[in-house]
Amino acid sequence: MAQGVTAGAFLAACRRQPVPHRPVWVMRQAGRYLPEYRAVRAKVDFETLTRTPELAAEVTLQPLRRFELDAAILFSDIMTPLQGMGVALDFAPGPHVREPIRTDAQVDALPALVPERDVPFVLDTIRLVRAGVPRGAPLIGFAGAPFTLLCYLVCGKPSKEFGPARTLLYAQPHTAERLLGRLAEAMGQYLAAQARAGAQALMLFESWAGLLAPREFTRFALPAVARTFAALRPLGVPLIYYANQGAALMPAVAGLDVDVVGVDWRCGLSEVRRMLGPGKAVQGNLDPAALFAPPAELKRHVDAVLEEAGEAPGHIFNLGHGIWPDTDPDAVARLVDYVHERR
Amino acid sequence: MAQGVTAGAFLAACRRQPVPHRPVWVMRQAGRYLPEYRAVRAKVDFETLTRTPELAAEVTLQPLRRFELDAAILFSDIMTPLQGMGVALDFAPGPHVREPIRTDAQVDALPALVPERDVPFVLDTIRLVRAGVPRGAPLIGFAGAPFTLLCYLVCGKPSKEFGPARTLLYAQPHTAERLLGRLAEAMGQYLAAQARAGAQALMLFESWAGLLAPREFTRFALPAVARTFAALRPLGVPLIYYANQGAALMPAVAGLDVDVVGVDWRCGLSEVRRMLGPGKAVQGNLDPAALFAPPAELKRHVDAVLEEAGEAPGHIFNLGHGIWPDTDPDAVARLVDYVHERR
Repeated sequence: MAQGVTAGAFLAACRRQPVPHRPVWVMRQAGRYLPEYRAVRAKVDFETLTRTPELAAEVTLQPLRRFELDAAILFSDIMTPLQGMGVALDFAPGPHVREPIRTDAQVDALPALVPERDVPFVLDTIRLVRAGVPRGAPLIGFAGAPFTLLCYLVCGKPSKEFGPARTLLYAQPHTAERLLGRLAEAMGQYLAAQARAGAQALMLFESWAGLLAPREFTRFALPAVARTFAALRPLGVPLIYYANQGAALMPAVAGLDVDVVGVDWRCGLSEVRRMLGPGKAVQGNLDPAALFAPPAELKRHVDAVLEEAGEAPGHIFNLGHGIWPDTDPDAVARLVDYVHERR
Repeated sequence: MAQGVTAGAFLAACRRQPVPHRPVWVMRQAGRYLPEYRAVRAKVDFETLTRTPELAAEVTLQPLRRFELDAAILFSDIMTPLQGMGVALDFAPGPHVREPIRTDAQVDALPALVPERDVPFVLDTIRLVRAGVPRGAPLIGFAGAPFTLLCYLVCGKPSKEFGPARTLLYAQPHTAERLLGRLAEAMGQYLAAQARAGAQALMLFESWAGLLAPREFTRFALPAVARTFAALRPLGVPLIYYANQGAALMPAVAGLDVDVVGVDWRCGLSEVRRMLGPGKAVQGNLDPAALFAPPAELKRHVDAVLEEAGEAPGHIFNLGHGIWPDTDPDAVARLVDYVHERR
């Protein structure tokens, strides 16, 4: 975009205010599809990268230097604060929790998170990013939503069905609620510390919302999200909730006190906006696979997302899920430029 | 259920006619959660089981002997007819296609399926089941829906994202449509032969509907399903389409000429029925994880599904997805009896 991007577009869109152009960023924009990221990762493992502020800040900023993105997002992992709470885990490459948590006693033994003490490198990364970010782009801090963290803690490793986590909800609902409460408290502390360190918007990733029936989502996952966000409201920064595979959950999410709802590519944004009502902005939702279309076709797919999003203020363009490692960076450049051109 | 189950409940519900009790069957009811199934599998591998009519009929009937289920479903695999078409694959345990199909030339080289010649053992299994089924329970024949089969053929193996299949839709849409057309034709032939052999209802499994944005679902997956079913309409048997993770796709599915739409547990049946309109029955949709709840809690979860389904004719109770191998068979007995008691 030759004219240069106005720094305020992302934050304005979060607040459903008019914007000079449609803001765009890309989930997992700091990642393996970028050769400069792979060059860093060739030297250090994933965990070291998340724990070394200079390197984490560097990879956070890489996509901002290459593309005219409207926001940066902290490079970290949703499991990082749990490590800070003493949960032993390995990245292999997905997170593997050495001792899955399935009893009240294990829940009660989880210590509170004190971010400045337990994960200072995350806060240092935020300070470094803020000091070096191009074009004054705002920085998004993030955490895993409590139910999504529960999935990993209960199952011990990534899986397709997350059977033990879903079983816990039905067989030991009170243990599940106890764990969700503990995680909500910790993630509230974690995101508040990120905001104090300089994060200008805060996002909760509910990667596994799609495992739940609407009834279980409303009983378990949503109250934990509401509790996390309630602690953050006084900070005055926009709050974003990403619910992957959440098409049928939007009527429930409509009642959540949040500024922006991010959705995956499996649902149409016009229907999502109808279900959420006018009081929330939306973020999304191009299929990451669309970046493999020929350039002219990619534009048609972007047009379709913009048409679904409509003209009302409060849309942040994004993919519906994380960008795939085998994506051509030039396709991302075309995407970002075209979204900005379309305004 | 002490009073005995009326044989016609399932077929009547498919046609949205009044029923003496709510019919119920369980996806993957012939499977690893049953000790008698595991005993058969201890003697033969999965593929041999699917290709040996006496054994395939035996495991098809096992759950009907143990529970008062309202329908049997053929024991087979969605990849079986593709093997019949000469696609080389292994079950390891999911299907692995030795040479993924990604070009027009490969699509054109796929021969037509002649079920009586290529998969006679499936038709023999159907005849054996019909001859031995308890209580006159009807038998459901099935096939994989074309897009779901495409996912395996293009990717070569099961995966979480099925990246190469989704990439094909965007990068080579005409090759994708060519393959879908070929698969629709073959599955139409396959299901017609199943009906001639004695199957009394025909079901297409769209296990990977949830990979697609509504737009791509409508362009690629749905026309192939419509084409498959169009060839079957003259047979006069109920047609069932199961769309896994299809919450946002129901408005599109509403236009499909099909008797029953099966849905997963991630959506509420009342909303599904509203979107589909009064002209379709629905099938589902208890979370398979709910079978791990204590007995009294399981009843509450069943009640919730029945309440969502409503009183209008045209609901077949089922799980929202296949039963898990570690499920207690006694929980299935309690489920079936309670659904029948509730009427």
